[in-house]
Amino acid sequence: MNKGREKIEWVKRNMPVLSEIKERFKEKKPLEGHKIGMALHVEPKTANLVETLRDGGAEIAITGCNPLSTQDDVSKYLDNEKGIRSYAKRGVNTEEYYEAIDNVLDFHPDITIDDGADLVFRLHSERPNQIDEIIGGSEETTTGVKRLESMESDNALKYPIIAVNDTPMKRHFDNVHGTGESTLSAIMATTNLQISGKNIVVAGYGYCSSGVAKKAKALGARVTVTEVKPRKALEAVMDGYEVKKMEKAIQKADIVVTATGNKNVIGREELKKINNGAVLANSGHFNVEIDLEAAEDLANNVKEIREGIKKYELSDDRNFYVLAEGRLVNLAAPLGFGHPIEVMDLSFSIQALSVQHLAKNPELQPGVKKVPQKIDEKVAEIKLKTMDIEIDELTSEQKDYLTSWKSGT
Amino acid sequence: MNKGREKIEWVKRNMPVLSEIKERFKEKKPLEGHKIGMALHVEPKTANLVETLRDGGAEIAITGCNPLSTQDDVSKYLDNEKGIRSYAKRGVNTEEYYEAIDNVLDFHPDITIDDGADLVFRLHSERPNQIDEIIGGSEETTTGVKRLESMESDNALKYPIIAVNDTPMKRHFDNVHGTGESTLSAIMATTNLQISGKNIVVAGYGYCSSGVAKKAKALGARVTVTEVKPRKALEAVMDGYEVKKMEKAIQKADIVVTATGNKNVIGREELKKINNGAVLANSGHFNVEIDLEAAEDLANNVKEIREGIKKYELSDDRNFYVLAEGRLVNLAAPLGFGHPIEVMDLSFSIQALSVQHLAKNPELQPGVKKVPQKIDEKVAEIKLKTMDIEIDELTSEQKDYLTSWKSGT
Amino acid sequence: MNKGREKIEWVKRNMPVLSEIKERFKEKKPLEGHKIGMALHVEPKTANLVETLRDGGAEIAITGCNPLSTQDDVSKYLDNEKGIRSYAKRGVNTEEYYEAIDNVLDFHPDITIDDGADLVFRLHSERPNQIDEIIGGSEETTTGVKRLESMESDNALKYPIIAVNDTPMKRHFDNVHGTGESTLSAIMATTNLQISGKNIVVAGYGYCSSGVAKKAKALGARVTVTEVKPRKALEAVMDGYEVKKMEKAIQKADIVVTATGNKNVIGREELKKINNGAVLANSGHFNVEIDLEAAEDLANNVKEIREGIKKYELSDDRNFYVLAEGRLVNLAAPLGFGHPIEVMDLSFSIQALSVQHLAKNPELQPGVKKVPQKIDEKVAEIKLKTMDIEIDELTSEQKDYLTSWKSGT
Amino acid sequence: MNKGREKIEWVKRNMPVLSEIKERFKEKKPLEGHKIGMALHVEPKTANLVETLRDGGAEIAITGCNPLSTQDDVSKYLDNEKGIRSYAKRGVNTEEYYEAIDNVLDFHPDITIDDGADLVFRLHSERPNQIDEIIGGSEETTTGVKRLESMESDNALKYPIIAVNDTPMKRHFDNVHGTGESTLSAIMATTNLQISGKNIVVAGYGYCSSGVAKKAKALGARVTVTEVKPRKALEAVMDGYEVKKMEKAIQKADIVVTATGNKNVIGREELKKINNGAVLANSGHFNVEIDLEAAEDLANNVKEIREGIKKYELSDDRNFYVLAEGRLVNLAAPLGFGHPIEVMDLSFSIQALSVQHLAKNPELQPGVKKVPQKIDEKVAEIKLKTMDIEIDELTSEQKDYLTSWKSGT
Repeated sequence: MNKGREKIEWVKRNMPVLSEIKERFKEKKPLEGHKIGMALHVEPKTANLVETLRDGGAEIAITGCNPLSTQDDVSKYLDNEKGIRSYAKRGVNTEEYYEAIDNVLDFHPDITIDDGADLVFRLHSERPNQIDEIIGGSEETTTGVKRLESMESDNALKYPIIAVNDTPMKRHFDNVHGTGESTLSAIMATTNLQISGKNIVVAGYGYCSSGVAKKAKALGARVTVTEVKPRKALEAVMDGYEVKKMEKAIQKADIVVTATGNKNVIGREELKKINNGAVLANSGHFNVEIDLEAAEDLANNVKEIREGIKKYELSDDRNFYVLAEGRLVNLAAPLGFGHPIEVMDLSFSIQALSVQHLAKNPELQPGVKKVPQKIDEKVAEIKLKTMDIEIDELTSEQKDYLTSWKSGT
Repeated sequence: MNKGREKIEWVKRNMPVLSEIKERFKEKKPLEGHKIGMALHVEPKTANLVETLRDGGAEIAITGCNPLSTQDDVSKYLDNEKGIRSYAKRGVNTEEYYEAIDNVLDFHPDITIDDGADLVFRLHSERPNQIDEIIGGSEETTTGVKRLESMESDNALKYPIIAVNDTPMKRHFDNVHGTGESTLSAIMATTNLQISGKNIVVAGYGYCSSGVAKKAKALGARVTVTEVKPRKALEAVMDGYEVKKMEKAIQKADIVVTATGNKNVIGREELKKINNGAVLANSGHFNVEIDLEAAEDLANNVKEIREGIKKYELSDDRNFYVLAEGRLVNLAAPLGFGHPIEVMDLSFSIQALSVQHLAKNPELQPGVKKVPQKIDEKVAEIKLKTMDIEIDELTSEQKDYLTSWKSGT
Repeated sequence: MNKGREKIEWVKRNMPVLSEIKERFKEKKPLEGHKIGMALHVEPKTANLVETLRDGGAEIAITGCNPLSTQDDVSKYLDNEKGIRSYAKRGVNTEEYYEAIDNVLDFHPDITIDDGADLVFRLHSERPNQIDEIIGGSEETTTGVKRLESMESDNALKYPIIAVNDTPMKRHFDNVHGTGESTLSAIMATTNLQISGKNIVVAGYGYCSSGVAKKAKALGARVTVTEVKPRKALEAVMDGYEVKKMEKAIQKADIVVTATGNKNVIGREELKKINNGAVLANSGHFNVEIDLEAAEDLANNVKEIREGIKKYELSDDRNFYVLAEGRLVNLAAPLGFGHPIEVMDLSFSIQALSVQHLAKNPELQPGVKKVPQKIDEKVAEIKLKTMDIEIDELTSEQKDYLTSWKSGT
Repeated sequence: MNKGREKIEWVKRNMPVLSEIKERFKEKKPLEGHKIGMALHVEPKTANLVETLRDGGAEIAITGCNPLSTQDDVSKYLDNEKGIRSYAKRGVNTEEYYEAIDNVLDFHPDITIDDGADLVFRLHSERPNQIDEIIGGSEETTTGVKRLESMESDNALKYPIIAVNDTPMKRHFDNVHGTGESTLSAIMATTNLQISGKNIVVAGYGYCSSGVAKKAKALGARVTVTEVKPRKALEAVMDGYEVKKMEKAIQKADIVVTATGNKNVIGREELKKINNGAVLANSGHFNVEIDLEAAEDLANNVKEIREGIKKYELSDDRNFYVLAEGRLVNLAAPLGFGHPIEVMDLSFSIQALSVQHLAKNPELQPGVKKVPQKIDEKVAEIKLKTMDIEIDELTSEQKDYLTSWKSGT
């Protein structure tokens, strides 16, 4: 059995929501005539999304959205499939990375799907003339949405993009549970270290980072949170976390996980104060959260001492360790397998329905768009159905009550 | 020492944020010349808010917002204070309840503060001619905000009201932690029953109800959640709860807590199927969530068997128990003390600053208004300061990064 | 309805295991002819045990085991019951306390039941001539068992006493869950303070104290544990707690709970370093864990500022608060209702069966005895049955496997 | 760098307790002249124990204790080290497995170290004449200790063996946290499935299984426990778990984990009722907990569909999946890395000190022996020291109080 295909079979079994959508797509062909350009983590779950879109009638060109997250057997499998070409390769340098993105753009897609907005950015900066060919796009991740919002407020965003990341179904499941579980699972598998009893510092208390904090604490770690927003900081306090500045927290940290979407969250000054032996991992989209330049600079010696673990030796005999070169650890670590399959089932189902929405509504105005409420709810409904979970329905009396305002004490 | 005053002293010690605001109010008198009509739970924490507003220069008339939640010694204490009159009494009937509200309206307030919107409703329905005297109001609770939104969409709301309930600082602390802890604390104190090992059913998975569910599970209960919204239901599943229809869940329930803001969440059909010996408590604002009429109807016999516990004996030898007559258990039960003091410190600080905002902006348009973002953040900041917690600040480099969109992979 | 009786009715409904034992006792009268002297917390749950023993044929004399934990209406109710006399009164001084114990001894019991061993101690020290009349006793609590073990190793213990406290069914339910929940419930009700977000220090990591720590953490507190045993300390670390010396921990504490069975756990030196505004509560049996003498000594002023809360004002403007005069807070606080009913159902069922065991085996040797394994298991079985929970049974093949040793890899 | 050595370097960095013991062993050579025969999981952490014993002066022969858990590069590395020979190989059949054990016995050890008691059993059954050469042994795991206890009660155990497994330091850290974390980590890595939201059934509520249950629940699973002992079952109920018979529980299970030490915990009847798509994993020592024979029998088709995942297709279209061929999943799965390093640091430190104890006390009587209390505590102390955690010490006044019995109420 083909290795890539085998991986995908297991994944499909565990993506019942997307399966149901795929069945409908096969029958109705809602994407007939569309060409979709994609830059996503090319791994088995993504392959299932790609096939779903293809089965819906689209032609696809795909590449990776991170130099280390592609699984080559999956990329090869996709490239051999009808209606799909894949340019993704693991371990590419920056030049090769953008070359592959250019290949996708050469395909002249009319819909884009991005995870981090590199495809959108390349298109806007290098191929402005192709923009008119595009009816819309969708974006998977927090970092990408933030980038698109910046583009929008600079009036630089020229077509409509649906912010899949920001829809409640994505935030509550993919970000909290998906990032939380997979980040810890990747750290455990890469280091074989224990979580319980550790001092773990989590940078940020947004959806992703609070998910990491919650799961780490649940496993028995003492978790300290760092934040820049007072309200989020206070939320962390009330949820039972220690809250400190990073420069304080890092002095006692056994493990630090960043997931803020910002750069240099662990910067030069923090690195100088680091606890001897600390392990640093990043769970944010880009490898900017740990200041690796400063790290190289401060270290006398840097070496890979175990797959996915680099040791930085400081001049004063302290060391620290960086996992997966500071890239998002749940995908880029040799033993990071990305988000759990069922989580991606939800996120990719939203992707598939969002692309269908774009195909049906080719005249949307440029800008960052919400996922239509109906799509978000639809995915929740299908998921509950596949789990055989029944919930209450409002009676008409209850509906009336909710819209009335005259009955009080 | 006067009993009411003594209670209030302890409360003040534990409301550092409101204390800081009160100091400023004393000095600046931002509410000079305003008359504030209030309908809130008249208990020690509320008294501290009333005094803060009075110290800010306002005159106050207050009554209760629930027939069972007033503490008479606190009401009396307030009524003796300069610039304050209180009409609140515990155990009033509906007529007396509205008579007291009318007393507050006779005072001709120009600002209203409500918890459940009974004051606003009375004003709109019985005293439309007074509406012009009002510059604005604020509303404390979910149920009240829902009611106001219904009024607004019927074009029936004639002045601006700030929805204190909906601001993040309220939702994450008051609703989740405040309702969660105080509901369980009131149930434990009233029944002396154990939480761990129990089958507890929580109706709803909004801010309040998810708080109850979380704390009950944390203490060792097996918690089942009922919901009407698929997304919320799925959230509960992923957070580790059983999710079922109420008619199923109630058959195995030891304790059921409602906190949905809707009526008849435990209706006649559910009561018919109830587990023998189940204890029912409501944590929503109004006593409509448990269908008490149906309960009376189904029961052969109803009697109070312990302070705050009524036993309903069914014809088939099954019984169930209702706490605090189905009114919100954390305030109306004889051993319910309302939300923890520190939680109300935050909510009432937002109230105080919202009232100041109304006084400064007398020309706001009618409608349900958000708490200004700055007020929400200000309260978080003061709270962190009083806890000696320092957090990170964005560097200018980081601020730039967050608004840039050109740096990608 | 009589107030004491009413309280007891509710309790009986929630003690199904003891009810089943009582039915059997009524029929078989296994305690016929025995006189039982008891010193327990005289509250409704205890009353149910007393009645069970009486229904088993015994005559009973009872008094309290703590000057503040008696509920007078319950004591009165018992005293009016046939075959029972009660000498317990709330708020007695030391002299009155021991006078009541002497009354129980004047009754010439042949079986004793103790909670803290005051009865046993009085008997051994003041009435050695009565010892021969005794066939055995049972002891409810950790502190009492430790005391008896010290007596035993001094060869001072002259009759057999069953250590109910040390049996697994007591430790895992009464100590962990019972003490845990009721301690927090009593603190919440007495202070109306919030648990989540607090720095709570728990002294000890035994069964009781780890229960308090677990529940406090579960509700959202940041919990620091202090210990004297390295292994217990390490257990706390691995379970996710901060572990520190008390003199360090108390400097940041919002609330401190002691439950060690030792004296001066918060001693003079610790009190000197106490965090301004800290609340101190004790959950151990005797009021020796907080050094109240040192507290009085260090304070310029001491006053009760709310029912159950004493404020100690230090010379440097710092204050701290002591709940329930340093007595076990879940019983001695005005709003402490003792352990949850269901927990006492288990512990008192073990008591009842242990007394039956003594009656059947009047020739046991002096010393501290374990609860017979069969009694411990019997109570677990009845409890599961009353909860309708079925569990697996070993097949004969599995039994063989467990005793075989020849099958390996 | 040699791959085996590299793996061991990382491990050593994270085993500070064993490092401290190794330093002392190097200097004092307490094992001079002893020959140690070992059957353990041959992976990097074990290698560090082997080196420590060798540095203490012993000669070593080692083999695996499970056909699938050996890491060949580590075995090779050890075999090249001075004073050590290793016969362990991954993927051996039963014959080869025992051949390797025979190689170790040919070496004529005077001390044995076992994990599962295969070495002890082989010695007793096949080489009784060698028994006189042995001064003692130690046993690592629950299953092995149970087996030895059966031997002892059959009078078949002919030399003293220290039950490392049963000492508190092992039970609370290795069994609860080590097995708990590593089992879930291995399942997540092998399947890429999500834990939160799953119905997970855990067979057993002993130290290992309760660890698995606790961590799974903490991550957001709904966990059902099966047990055969009423007391353990009730403990699980009070800790918030659903408790059911396996034949009921398996009908709704998404994942089942066994860790009971017994056979056919998931037997033929349970397999017949299995939930379609369920994933079965074993975390007990031997591959007998899931009845694989019955599984083969019931299935129309069995195939490996992903590394470490076998699919069993039933005739009625249902499937189930077995991980790692039913062997202990945290070691035998391709992505199982065994217990976390820090956990093994504690367990192997106890092993090292136990072996030293045997060497010092060559005249112990046959039988299963406890780890001396002093060793258990010593390891806790060193561990706390390496974590920079200071704890309280009893004052002499407190020591007196604990042994006194005269001070009461």
